Amino acid sequence: MPADQLVQNLESALSKVPLIDPHSHIDPLAPVSKSLDDILGYHYYTELAHSAGMPQTVLAKDADPRDRVREIVRFMDRYDNTAQYAWFVDIARTFLGFAGDRVTAKDADALFDAAQKTFAQPDWEQQVFNTTKLEKIFLTNEFDDPLKGFDTTKYVPCLRTDTLVFHMDKPDTRRRLYAATGVQVHDASTLRKAIATIFMHFTRNGAKACAISLPPQFHPAKFDDEHFYEQMQFHGFHDLAPGIFWTIAEFCRDFKLPFDLMIGVNRRVYEKGVFQGQDLFDQRTSLIQYRELFNAFPDVTFPVSVLTSAQNQELVAYSWIFPNVLPNGHWWYSNTPPYIKKDLVERITAVPKSKLVGYYSDAYKLEFVKPKYGMYRRILAHVLADEFVRPNVLSEEGAVALGTRLLRDNVRDIFKV
Amino acid sequence: MPADQLVQNLESALSKVPLIDPHSHIDPLAPVSKSLDDILGYHYYTELAHSAGMPQTVLAKDADPRDRVREIVRFMDRYDNTAQYAWFVDIARTFLGFAGDRVTAKDADALFDAAQKTFAQPDWEQQVFNTTKLEKIFLTNEFDDPLKGFDTTKYVPCLRTDTLVFHMDKPDTRRRLYAATGVQVHDASTLRKAIATIFMHFTRNGAKACAISLPPQFHPAKFDDEHFYEQMQFHGFHDLAPGIFWTIAEFCRDFKLPFDLMIGVNRRVYEKGVFQGQDLFDQRTSLIQYRELFNAFPDVTFPVSVLTSAQNQELVAYSWIFPNVLPNGHWWYSNTPPYIKKDLVERITAVPKSKLVGYYSDAYKLEFVKPKYGMYRRILAHVLADEFVRPNVLSEEGAVALGTRLLRDNVRDIFKV
Amino acid sequence: MPADQLVQNLESALSKVPLIDPHSHIDPLAPVSKSLDDILGYHYYTELAHSAGMPQTVLAKDADPRDRVREIVRFMDRYDNTAQYAWFVDIARTFLGFAGDRVTAKDADALFDAAQKTFAQPDWEQQVFNTTKLEKIFLTNEFDDPLKGFDTTKYVPCLRTDTLVFHMDKPDTRRRLYAATGVQVHDASTLRKAIATIFMHFTRNGAKACAISLPPQFHPAKFDDEHFYEQMQFHGFHDLAPGIFWTIAEFCRDFKLPFDLMIGVNRRVYEKGVFQGQDLFDQRTSLIQYRELFNAFPDVTFPVSVLTSAQNQELVAYSWIFPNVLPNGHWWYSNTPPYIKKDLVERITAVPKSKLVGYYSDAYKLEFVKPKYGMYRRILAHVLADEFVRPNVLSEEGAVALGTRLLRDNVRDIFKV
Repeated sequence: MPADQLVQNLESALSKVPLIDPHSHIDPLAPVSKSLDDILGYHYYTELAHSAGMPQTVLAKDADPRDRVREIVRFMDRYDNTAQYAWFVDIARTFLGFAGDRVTAKDADALFDAAQKTFAQPDWEQQVFNTTKLEKIFLTNEFDDPLKGFDTTKYVPCLRTDTLVFHMDKPDTRRRLYAATGVQVHDASTLRKAIATIFMHFTRNGAKACAISLPPQFHPAKFDDEHFYEQMQFHGFHDLAPGIFWTIAEFCRDFKLPFDLMIGVNRRVYEKGVFQGQDLFDQRTSLIQYRELFNAFPDVTFPVSVLTSAQNQELVAYSWIFPNVLPNGHWWYSNTPPYIKKDLVERITAVPKSKLVGYYSDAYKLEFVKPKYGMYRRILAHVLADEFVRPNVLSEEGAVALGTRLLRDNVRDIFKV
Repeated sequence: MPADQLVQNLESALSKVPLIDPHSHIDPLAPVSKSLDDILGYHYYTELAHSAGMPQTVLAKDADPRDRVREIVRFMDRYDNTAQYAWFVDIARTFLGFAGDRVTAKDADALFDAAQKTFAQPDWEQQVFNTTKLEKIFLTNEFDDPLKGFDTTKYVPCLRTDTLVFHMDKPDTRRRLYAATGVQVHDASTLRKAIATIFMHFTRNGAKACAISLPPQFHPAKFDDEHFYEQMQFHGFHDLAPGIFWTIAEFCRDFKLPFDLMIGVNRRVYEKGVFQGQDLFDQRTSLIQYRELFNAFPDVTFPVSVLTSAQNQELVAYSWIFPNVLPNGHWWYSNTPPYIKKDLVERITAVPKSKLVGYYSDAYKLEFVKPKYGMYRRILAHVLADEFVRPNVLSEEGAVALGTRLLRDNVRDIFKV
Repeated sequence: MPADQLVQNLESALSKVPLIDPHSHIDPLAPVSKSLDDILGYHYYTELAHSAGMPQTVLAKDADPRDRVREIVRFMDRYDNTAQYAWFVDIARTFLGFAGDRVTAKDADALFDAAQKTFAQPDWEQQVFNTTKLEKIFLTNEFDDPLKGFDTTKYVPCLRTDTLVFHMDKPDTRRRLYAATGVQVHDASTLRKAIATIFMHFTRNGAKACAISLPPQFHPAKFDDEHFYEQMQFHGFHDLAPGIFWTIAEFCRDFKLPFDLMIGVNRRVYEKGVFQGQDLFDQRTSLIQYRELFNAFPDVTFPVSVLTSAQNQELVAYSWIFPNVLPNGHWWYSNTPPYIKKDLVERITAVPKSKLVGYYSDAYKLEFVKPKYGMYRRILAHVLADEFVRPNVLSEEGAVALGTRLLRDNVRDIFKV
């Protein structure tokens, strides 16, 4: 059997597995795109076009969506080497009837028109679910999200806690917290009461995870009640992040929710960057900063995403040693083929397979789930072929079973969906 | 010639090379396993099983060995994707007559029984030596090891200095040091006298190396005699590690012993982990911390192991520049196929071949030398094929010679065995 | 079409592209070698031979060049596995009529004699340009270089600013600066006047870039005039590096010169190393240190080289986000095949192709441009085949166009040559 045939067989078998996507930014009230502007407004495209020289004028809120699409597509001949461009071509071919191999400036209008028509179909959301073989997808919900108006068995709520942990010093956060919980936070006890109220609201509404993104230098710490009191009463709620984080971990334990940690992002590094295209990182970070946390919460499952591939070996080793730590997908700057391949091979040869959460889409619109998982499945098929089938470690069937576990079974087991 | 045939030829040729294993934890008085419990009690298996959910109850000293083996094997269906599982299958097939491709829960008893019978053979130790084509293997000896009762030309002593360097503040260390040397350490002069006594004992008994494992933040430093005096007399022998380390390097110079540095381990990170399964690391470390050391001791050879693959480029560069620094094997969390392959390719294309110590087993029982070296030889064969034979840089014979150098010749030359 | 045929086709097509080499250390008044001693005196060979055991006696200035060559060649059987050895074999075959596959000790004299004859040809420089298909090559010029006596359209001046930034505290630097500009620096204003004079001199003489190499811990900073005054008047011009660097960036902006940053080198780590073979690094560095710089100078293009491959992901991400940051070649300890391949794949799948400066030779003598670019083109051909042609992303022609962009087009566009 020729080498490529094996990979094709594996990829084809894996593409039949219904997906449970454990992390996205989908708005369940507007899950699909309404125009091509929604697709190309995704920060990957605005970032790449801007990085390649596109001025930001066309990104203004009041700019014409068709003009914006034209401009972003016009710059594609400067970034059509990237993985993100390949996602777009996949979307154009899968959803918009595009028949070419490469999208260029002259295709912008036809694609825009095709999208208008396609996305206007009343059953478009369901069509995307079907074409993608998508079963469930996790959301990213602010702590005061009412979680109403959507099917939580399909759109699984996930409590995002960045605001609570990092912005409690902002009066607006405390106002929102009061509005959502009826609790005026002023000390450790009221903090716990407010957070408990949120956890109850979320778990009653089908939440299956708690999540947070963390800067490279973050170090969780248990604060005592006096420390909370002092910071809240006398220091404007400043510097509470390590302690609020720890408190949330306590509630993850009590409510039996996995706590997704997404480690490594510095916000607003490129201050004048495009929307959502301003964040970068400092590679000098270590999971040793989470030593106390992982020891203190043996009953909390921590699915961990790291922003940099260089930190993947720490993630592999910590997942190999700590029962409650496991590697979760391929995040952001590590979500391109060479990093996915490297990180996946390192994980799949060293971490118990029952702990490997293969991938999540991180998508803002449902149309992106297919091309992103498609990219992942191709790499997964290559890795399964090279590391397991060709060295006679697994049969083709065994390799598909292992891949299915990464794509779906482990998500179901670990997040209990 | 098909691609795989070349790799097979190289692997086959390399498998004929008799091994000199330059680092292990073999007890020369009990070098082979007595039961399958000795094999599966290896921390890799207890770690992986525990990480995958196995409670530690079965690991208690008084638990039944057969029950322990059953339980560790039972959990294999959660970690049978790992390199360590593949070692076990290799052991089962090579030594225990196992004929299957995969070991599962139902095989536990038969394997346990086969091991009882096999390991009880009076010439078992010699059989393992023969099957493994093992000629010599280095030990890891505590400073007060009597080094008696075994053949030191086969089991090569190596002075392990972690206790001396990091635990001199413990009264028990000083008691043991006094018992071993007759010297009561209380200042720099008595410290030197005690260490000299140990070095004499070791070199007279055929020791060929000194070794130590070091935490990521360690920075060696020369202490003056007053500083030793002050710390010993007034500060309970605390904070002496940098200076004792430096003193030991002086004796390595005087006694012409290579000093193996194993850099990067943080001890007891997972406090409730299984025995020997508690240590992890902080990737933020640099060989620049050893700058003064490498400059101060041009006549001491430093075979260096790094715990993380990200540090391999430093190791490559320092070995390329410093005549007395060389890369040594693939250690612990970097001893899985993707890291070995990456690190080996980086080394073998940039560091003088005469300085490359390819591999060591790090084994606790002799049965592990074969599967571990087998894994390494497969990767080495692939690398030699891809980097040297296929691009017409070396003939097949030339590649085998290069591989033999990494496997054996350099160990003989560098450690003078 | 067999796999290798595709790579060969691509490599062959790429080898026809005329080169513009954007970074070298060529002396335009003595651009080619005069003897084999000039070739093997390149620090890569003296480093590797010394690292493999060669004493430095033969490297003394008054040692016989033929003896030196013999000695360096004699040690090749200890480092003939390295990429640098392969460059030398390429030079011997291309330029010296060497017909063998491997250079050994017995070839030293014949090669020395062949070099004497070959390099003495009056048109040797032009022959090397032709054989290499070299069109232009950038220089590294000290700030007081007269830039006279050579064709600046062929040898493109580049202002190297290490001395100005890091050695202003040395009286000799200030004397040279006065001699070159007529300005006696004693405060911010005279500093600016002196630097302006240098920039005028360089741009009038065809300079197309400014460049600097930086230690791992360097952090640029804007100094106010009072701070310059105080350090210059009262602190012996010490600790000015961050501020002088920033001032030079201001002139890069005003004179529209790209500012090449070569990040990560610690000077004189191996104090007794061979000439130019003393520098190493600390992997713990981050582009976050350049956050303020990249934000403050949106109009300055920063082609960035990083010394370590682990930092490549930062370079990829910062280049993907910041329009003014782009990845530049493969530097020094990252200029061996495994690092080039890894770093190239990571860049070419994530950074807009219009921003990728593929390679530079860093050569001291023109004869090295060919083997170094040859190594790069082979890797580039493999990457284009595996990432673009085989997955049907690009046709063979499209892949050659992408490769040509990395090799030549982007250099022309970015540096405006």
